[in-house]
Amino acid sequence: MFLRTCGRSLKFLNCQPLVRSRSIRFQGSLHGSTKNVRHSNASLAAVAASLISGIVLGLYTTKRLRSNKQTFPLSSITPLNDLSPPQYGTDEDFANCIKELMELLPDKSVTTTEVEIEHHTDNGFNPSKPLSHQRPKCIVYPSSTEEVSAIMQIINKYNIPVVPYSGGTSLEGHTYSTRPGIVLNTSRMNKILAVHVDDLDAVLEAGVGWQQLNEYLANHEGMENLMLGCDCGPGAHVCGMVNTNASGIAATRYGSMGSNILSIKAVLADGTVVKTKQRPRKSSAGYNLTGLLVGSEGTLAIVTEVTVKLQVKPAYETVAVVQFPTLRDCTNAVATLFKKGIQLNAVELLDTEMMKCINYSNLISKSYENLPTIFFKIAGLNEVVVNEYIKEVKKVSQDNDCKMFEFAKSEEEAEELFSARKNSLYMMLDYGYNEIDENAKMWITDCAVPLSRLASTLEEVKNLMSQYPLPHMVLGHVGDGNFHCDIFYMPDQYQMCKQIVREMTEITLKNEGTCSGEHGVGTGKRAMLELELGENTISMMRKLKLALDPKRLLNPDKVFKIDPLDESDE
Amino acid sequence: MFLRTCGRSLKFLNCQPLVRSRSIRFQGSLHGSTKNVRHSNASLAAVAASLISGIVLGLYTTKRLRSNKQTFPLSSITPLNDLSPPQYGTDEDFANCIKELMELLPDKSVTTTEVEIEHHTDNGFNPSKPLSHQRPKCIVYPSSTEEVSAIMQIINKYNIPVVPYSGGTSLEGHTYSTRPGIVLNTSRMNKILAVHVDDLDAVLEAGVGWQQLNEYLANHEGMENLMLGCDCGPGAHVCGMVNTNASGIAATRYGSMGSNILSIKAVLADGTVVKTKQRPRKSSAGYNLTGLLVGSEGTLAIVTEVTVKLQVKPAYETVAVVQFPTLRDCTNAVATLFKKGIQLNAVELLDTEMMKCINYSNLISKSYENLPTIFFKIAGLNEVVVNEYIKEVKKVSQDNDCKMFEFAKSEEEAEELFSARKNSLYMMLDYGYNEIDENAKMWITDCAVPLSRLASTLEEVKNLMSQYPLPHMVLGHVGDGNFHCDIFYMPDQYQMCKQIVREMTEITLKNEGTCSGEHGVGTGKRAMLELELGENTISMMRKLKLALDPKRLLNPDKVFKIDPLDESDE
Repeated sequence: MFLRTCGRSLKFLNCQPLVRSRSIRFQGSLHGSTKNVRHSNASLAAVAASLISGIVLGLYTTKRLRSNKQTFPLSSITPLNDLSPPQYGTDEDFANCIKELMELLPDKSVTTTEVEIEHHTDNGFNPSKPLSHQRPKCIVYPSSTEEVSAIMQIINKYNIPVVPYSGGTSLEGHTYSTRPGIVLNTSRMNKILAVHVDDLDAVLEAGVGWQQLNEYLANHEGMENLMLGCDCGPGAHVCGMVNTNASGIAATRYGSMGSNILSIKAVLADGTVVKTKQRPRKSSAGYNLTGLLVGSEGTLAIVTEVTVKLQVKPAYETVAVVQFPTLRDCTNAVATLFKKGIQLNAVELLDTEMMKCINYSNLISKSYENLPTIFFKIAGLNEVVVNEYIKEVKKVSQDNDCKMFEFAKSEEEAEELFSARKNSLYMMLDYGYNEIDENAKMWITDCAVPLSRLASTLEEVKNLMSQYPLPHMVLGHVGDGNFHCDIFYMPDQYQMCKQIVREMTEITLKNEGTCSGEHGVGTGKRAMLELELGENTISMMRKLKLALDPKRLLNPDKVFKIDPLDESDE
Repeated sequence: MFLRTCGRSLKFLNCQPLVRSRSIRFQGSLHGSTKNVRHSNASLAAVAASLISGIVLGLYTTKRLRSNKQTFPLSSITPLNDLSPPQYGTDEDFANCIKELMELLPDKSVTTTEVEIEHHTDNGFNPSKPLSHQRPKCIVYPSSTEEVSAIMQIINKYNIPVVPYSGGTSLEGHTYSTRPGIVLNTSRMNKILAVHVDDLDAVLEAGVGWQQLNEYLANHEGMENLMLGCDCGPGAHVCGMVNTNASGIAATRYGSMGSNILSIKAVLADGTVVKTKQRPRKSSAGYNLTGLLVGSEGTLAIVTEVTVKLQVKPAYETVAVVQFPTLRDCTNAVATLFKKGIQLNAVELLDTEMMKCINYSNLISKSYENLPTIFFKIAGLNEVVVNEYIKEVKKVSQDNDCKMFEFAKSEEEAEELFSARKNSLYMMLDYGYNEIDENAKMWITDCAVPLSRLASTLEEVKNLMSQYPLPHMVLGHVGDGNFHCDIFYMPDQYQMCKQIVREMTEITLKNEGTCSGEHGVGTGKRAMLELELGENTISMMRKLKLALDPKRLLNPDKVFKIDPLDESDE
């Protein structure tokens, strides 16, 4: 099969490597021109000859430079200082770009109105704020993959920075326009293209919301018991969930978004359209491009279509609420359940401060002791099965000194019990507004550690918090070792809060943790990411970025630095 | 935060893009030299002047060429014809490379003995054979990540092709030395570095076998009920399982290898060491490099360490064997069970031909009707739970006209029942040897389709097979829509069998399938991969390959073509 290739490769083994052979030819032509001159008299002809040789030489070298054969940097990574600063289009380029985009989309799909610009500058959820310069100059609303491709070809032609945007719910500045350019908003691409009930999958346009999908399924015959496995922030769209590898409460059972995707259609920086996989559940067919795009935060491609797995709602499910003396008792109980192979549909930890907040709120009828509490969801085929699991969960909880174990006997009771966890965000905001200050802000952090390190990490975090005057509450997706420490601060305490979050993340990393379990890196955690993975790994990511997006147009400055002149400390 | 960056980016918006500004300077200097000449008399000085301008110009351009700033091709993909042929080292380079490797590893870790070369040329399992040229020239056995890094630095310096090798069990020519070079064998890196029982994970060197890990766990206190979720071919090592995204019978429950990995340590082509993630179960920290390396078949990096998830052996498990009138009844029953959210630990289909083979064999005591048969594994917390699920599986099977439903009442019975599936490969070989010809060969194919398309696909495949004289049997991991059609052929029927496999794969692709569910692409399925995903997606993969491995040293010619002169039809 490889005879030809191999024969030639043997021939190559007697060749000079590319760079060497190029320089040889190069010296050759110079040498040639020198000879021409030596053997002639000094004359205009000679001048012309040598000039021509100069020109030929120049043209030859630029031809090599412009050769249609691709050449690549010889290292496997791209340290920041190996890059020149990105070179974006001029104001004139930008104007021409907008003009062409408007010609492409003559309706109201290209806009520069102040209201739209303002709306796409900041979603209000991000602790760090964009600076006054950091505003987009134009918003584009494509309605198909083909339009996104055409748009990217124009943007690529004029070298304009572009920020992908859809649900706009991200929490780490992912959608900031750090360089004034275009925002590409895929929220109008919100069609559910297909639902394959027998295969438990659905094909969705980028701008479909996970709630929209679940409502659609609930209202269609034969699909009522299907849902997306990933239940992240309200309003999130599938493309954003893919880009941040979002998750939520159900991740302990169904995994993060990355585990719930079969295939992605995406548009690359130069407008090329790719589809990563076919629809089968299992594939070993080539590079896992789906895996690469998950968590790439719009820096590698514009996601335009996603084929997601669908999960089946539990036939029977109940909720158990268990209170423990300490956080360590909580995590020990959960670890024991996992080591017994007991699958749980939710394992949510609320710390003492959070329970105080729940008791303070009037959103639920029950009141609890102010103790670390775990909210379990336990599901199975029917009541007989679930009761067997409840017995086991109760036994393990008691072995770990639980102070209270209560489980729901009906669907209504289950809903009532879980509502304390479900509404915790609103209860926190309500508490902050009434008990702290109506101008109080809340910083929502996101870290994860191996389960065995969660208790010690949270103890260190508590110790850290005790050194600062800021009220805080801990909510944890314990099943994944993922926790949020939500901190209240007044506007003038911003720097203090930022410092706390940094120290908290450092504690997490010291405990073999990660700086983000589900929110992503954006602009907010770039420094922490480098601390977590080291310069080589970041430089490998940067190499991949430059390979797919050589002009650094796609969501620039997110995940890691792409500009040697970027001196931000984040 | 981005003030500086942003200020400068505004400045950039008034700059010329890199390429344009370069050409401007270039023309500038030429124009300059022309003027010099026009205004001077023709003289040696002028000749010198113009020559100098030529030289300056030449040097300037080569300096740009050699600039320590990385520059990248401006497109997002790399079509094959945009590449020049790879340029590997000369015989002298190769000799120097071996010399340096021997200095680095003075013991017996670098070998060129005929026995070793022969052993690393072909594992004997691959239907397509390497050609006489396709033999490695040297085998290197590193014993640590640091050694792999040092080895790759030397190999990179001399531009020698290198094929990663460990368990040597792959089935699509992944370990063929298509270009005579070095085989890097990680099988001596077989230490189990850590087992974190509370986190259900283990840190393994690349050359640890999955059976080795399971034996280790079974023999250590507190770990007896833990195992790797991935049970692929006997002898496979974790690095190979990562590289082909291997799976097996348990994939329907625990997913493929990609779903069972938390983190990878790897060495890039230039010797750079990277670690993709920390140990938490969940992370949204930067690009998913773990996902990228899964299924990359050693073409992007040398995997040296893998952190795997550990699964808990079912507390109680039984086996049910169910026979159906048709393949379609089988897949309908499985689809119904999945739509009810019933989780099964194995769903293995054996077709009528395979059942004949089982009845022929004397390896099991029972005999079955010659009908499509499904072997289920059903697990849960205890017998009460499992019995509830068995009732449901039985009901669904009966609703789908099953002709026989039998389940094991004890662990021994379960083992006995499943042994028919477990030993099917040996039974097939035994059958082929005795009933066909002692020189008969078996071609093991691997395709996958969405479950809803499995029955029609297998019907088309049966129809295809009926046009050829070759005996065949179908084994399917139905839970994943993954099937193997194993075909017997005599050596002189090789081309016929190859043609059948190609047509079978085309049928699969027509049914929204993939050319490989678990074996990978290697050299055997490159053409099918391009047919499946299209040229753009392959060119995106090629771009990533060239970015991380610009000299095309790592497992060249695997997954897709990297050489425009490669005229192979595979």
